[in-house]
Amino acid sequence: MKFSKIPTATITRLSRYSRALEELEKQRVNVISSEKLARYCEVNSAQIRKDLAYFGEFGVRGVGYVIKELLFEIKRILGLNKVWHLGIIGMGNMGYALIDHSNFPRQGYHFVAAFDNDPRKIGKMLSQGFPISPMSELEEIALERNIEIAVIATPADKAQEVANLVTRTPIRGILNFAPIQLHVPEGFIVHHIDFTVKLDRLAYLLGNMDAESPKSSTMKSPWISKHLL
Amino acid sequence: MKFSKIPTATITRLSRYSRALEELEKQRVNVISSEKLARYCEVNSAQIRKDLAYFGEFGVRGVGYVIKELLFEIKRILGLNKVWHLGIIGMGNMGYALIDHSNFPRQGYHFVAAFDNDPRKIGKMLSQGFPISPMSELEEIALERNIEIAVIATPADKAQEVANLVTRTPIRGILNFAPIQLHVPEGFIVHHIDFTVKLDRLAYLLGNMDAESPKSSTMKSPWISKHLL
Repeated sequence: MKFSKIPTATITRLSRYSRALEELEKQRVNVISSEKLARYCEVNSAQIRKDLAYFGEFGVRGVGYVIKELLFEIKRILGLNKVWHLGIIGMGNMGYALIDHSNFPRQGYHFVAAFDNDPRKIGKMLSQGFPISPMSELEEIALERNIEIAVIATPADKAQEVANLVTRTPIRGILNFAPIQLHVPEGFIVHHIDFTVKLDRLAYLLGNMDAESPKSSTMKSPWISKHLL
Repeated sequence: MKFSKIPTATITRLSRYSRALEELEKQRVNVISSEKLARYCEVNSAQIRKDLAYFGEFGVRGVGYVIKELLFEIKRILGLNKVWHLGIIGMGNMGYALIDHSNFPRQGYHFVAAFDNDPRKIGKMLSQGFPISPMSELEEIALERNIEIAVIATPADKAQEVANLVTRTPIRGILNFAPIQLHVPEGFIVHHIDFTVKLDRLAYLLGNMDAESPKSSTMKSPWISKHLL
């Protein structure tokens, strides 16, 4: 298996498959056909089979996928059978919203440290059991607690400076929530979260709803139609 | 142009192209080849040409795309040449983080209302120039201010209830930040934001970094390698 040949889009879809499989597991479904899983994930079944083919053989012809097995395999492929240590930088509203968001620990992402440069925030104990640390302790704490990913939640005008500091620590990955494109040297990976990309899709679908199937038009009550016209 | 035939992935990539083109426009670049734009967006150039072919002819052979024109066209396709009205529901840390995030207005998404059921929050004036309203006023305000998209930022255990209320107003689209899958009747569109999907990609790349090209390994300082082994 050659790592570099696996398209990023496949990796993103694998995450989605794993979320769907987890949801199905909760609903006590044991086996699912690639067609049904495809519908659930809003891709076509050939795509699922193609994505999984990068990593080996999955599923039983005519039966489908055993959810527990497939989920375990996808998590292994994605490296999610381990716990990842995250440090958050910037304890404003976004910082608190993220550190308290239950999706992170549920998926194996654990915040082990929080940083800010505001003297009024430094030292404040968090419900996670550690205090907010000053940025000057980033390197030391990153080593000590083995932080693998820095989550940047600072304002836009501080984010690049923070990213520069991160690249002087053993942390190699950055998840950036600040509304600015960050530049880091080779050997580091930055992913940027832009909520508006999903909004664009939503806006596109809403804008084209009236042109869509008659099924959905009949769903509209008269005053909604009137309002939208 | 048949709406239903355009894959969701194409729409998502169009958003990315538009973000890249905006960035290039800021850097005062006027024309770009599909190869360069492709590298910038981390897709292949055939993909860009294929995506744009759904909507007509773009670009000049041997020259490339005029950024200003292409950006205008993509925004027109996505329906982003208009301002979208958003209402946020749930004014905790996430609510404040989102309403203050500069990406939204920059991309034409304007928050025009905020809702919460906490009596301590209701009536509080926001820097956006309107107060936090009680949920009981959702329908009235949605009509009055023409809210088109509800952004749900409540805790998980309140989100479905809130979504049910939204479906009784003229609002047709929901962007959900709560860590729970929402169910809505046909005729409504929900998009779910799960930050951890991007983290999975990051984790995958970090986990495979050592197996990657020797270029990136040479970037590691000895103590980073030691630390990671």
